[in-house]
Amino acid sequence: MTEGVFSEKHQVLFYETDRTKETTVGMLVNILMLASQDQSIALGLTEEKINALGYGWVITQHLIEIVRMPKYGEQITIFTKADSYNRYFCYRDFWIESQQGERLAKMHSVFVLMDQQKRKIARVLDELIDPYNCEYSAKVERMPDPKRLAQGRQLPAKQYRVRFMDIDSNQHVNNVHYFDWMIDGLSEDFLLRHKLLKMNIKYKREVHYGEMVESATEIDEAKLESFHVIKTVQGESCRARCLWQKRTM
Amino acid sequence: MTEGVFSEKHQVLFYETDRTKETTVGMLVNILMLASQDQSIALGLTEEKINALGYGWVITQHLIEIVRMPKYGEQITIFTKADSYNRYFCYRDFWIESQQGERLAKMHSVFVLMDQQKRKIARVLDELIDPYNCEYSAKVERMPDPKRLAQGRQLPAKQYRVRFMDIDSNQHVNNVHYFDWMIDGLSEDFLLRHKLLKMNIKYKREVHYGEMVESATEIDEAKLESFHVIKTVQGESCRARCLWQKRTM
Repeated sequence: MTEGVFSEKHQVLFYETDRTKETTVGMLVNILMLASQDQSIALGLTEEKINALGYGWVITQHLIEIVRMPKYGEQITIFTKADSYNRYFCYRDFWIESQQGERLAKMHSVFVLMDQQKRKIARVLDELIDPYNCEYSAKVERMPDPKRLAQGRQLPAKQYRVRFMDIDSNQHVNNVHYFDWMIDGLSEDFLLRHKLLKMNIKYKREVHYGEMVESATEIDEAKLESFHVIKTVQGESCRARCLWQKRTM
Repeated sequence: MTEGVFSEKHQVLFYETDRTKETTVGMLVNILMLASQDQSIALGLTEEKINALGYGWVITQHLIEIVRMPKYGEQITIFTKADSYNRYFCYRDFWIESQQGERLAKMHSVFVLMDQQKRKIARVLDELIDPYNCEYSAKVERMPDPKRLAQGRQLPAKQYRVRFMDIDSNQHVNNVHYFDWMIDGLSEDFLLRHKLLKMNIKYKREVHYGEMVESATEIDEAKLESFHVIKTVQGESCRARCLWQKRTM
């Protein structure tokens, strides 16, 4: 095994897929995150332990690239590696391979450590990063911001309420809901005829139980790009840009 | 292994649990259904094969009893057995055991065969039931209807839109959503302070992509019972009655 790479197998369950029998992008991200959760547990750095120190890991950005979505029933292997870190940011890579060793999807993610009392980003603690065998690099990565479309057509915004069961065992709105709120802004026809190639999603502010969120969507059907913003009355919570491809069948 | 009993192992994933780190009831039902899906696949009676014959299995009722919900990370075993059938109804049992062999939950479910062209219930076909090694009994089970509460207090109804990703690889609104729509009608305070002991849920009519559903909730806080109805403009889609218990911690 390559140094610092953690992997685990997963069989895609029916409730992780949609009508196309492929995983939704939200579930893809949940599945990828299984690997980092289980790596943390294997290293003794559980959520509970980090919370007991007064901290929590928070994701600020994901860059996702999809060759093809895993299918219902498919046996996949999830990989993750804590790539590098600096004073405030930790970079982590994720990828999924099919049983034939084909790379199906990858994700590059930014994690920060949150001081739970001060509700502010904390400096990365050595004791929380050393066990991952991760490289220190003073350089802060320049991740592209998800940008508004030059020629976007606005689609009708949709409203969602954050529900009790949307908050998962990490005490955050589960990833899948942000993705669902965004993807649901696109039409059925578009979703059946296209597949997601790339997604850049950046989180700005947590939303909480009971809040109403608005999901606004822009689309450029020529370039097959979409842009998504999730807002609450408090302001912008999350934005993303997607690149799509026509399905051949 | 007891005759006709199918079982499989499952480890509870973080996104199958809520804030309490226990599976939601919707996810519990999804997890239970894994066993019947995988049994059908093992017997060569896949969804595709049944659809190709012009039929589909539809669930009309679940009776659920919970000793305790499976927890995040817990290794469980799911069991299922096709119990008996008559001309139109098939009865199936499900249960979950912990690693120590403790029974955590059980479910008794009614399945019917739907003629996909006529959109009507069809007579159970021998070729679709024989492989399950299931007993024929002319007697139709008298399952209790989920009844309105005698002393129920009406809570504010909530609206939900059926989204693209709510339709799963079986081409139906995934179970988890009906349960989420119902449970979300109860207050945060109630959900944190109580646990579900029993649920009787009866489906009347499928809801479709794009439809708006209304979830209406009644509660009797003395008897710790709740009653739930899911409606669309077409009428009632689903109703359920729940029995709750105060959490000790």
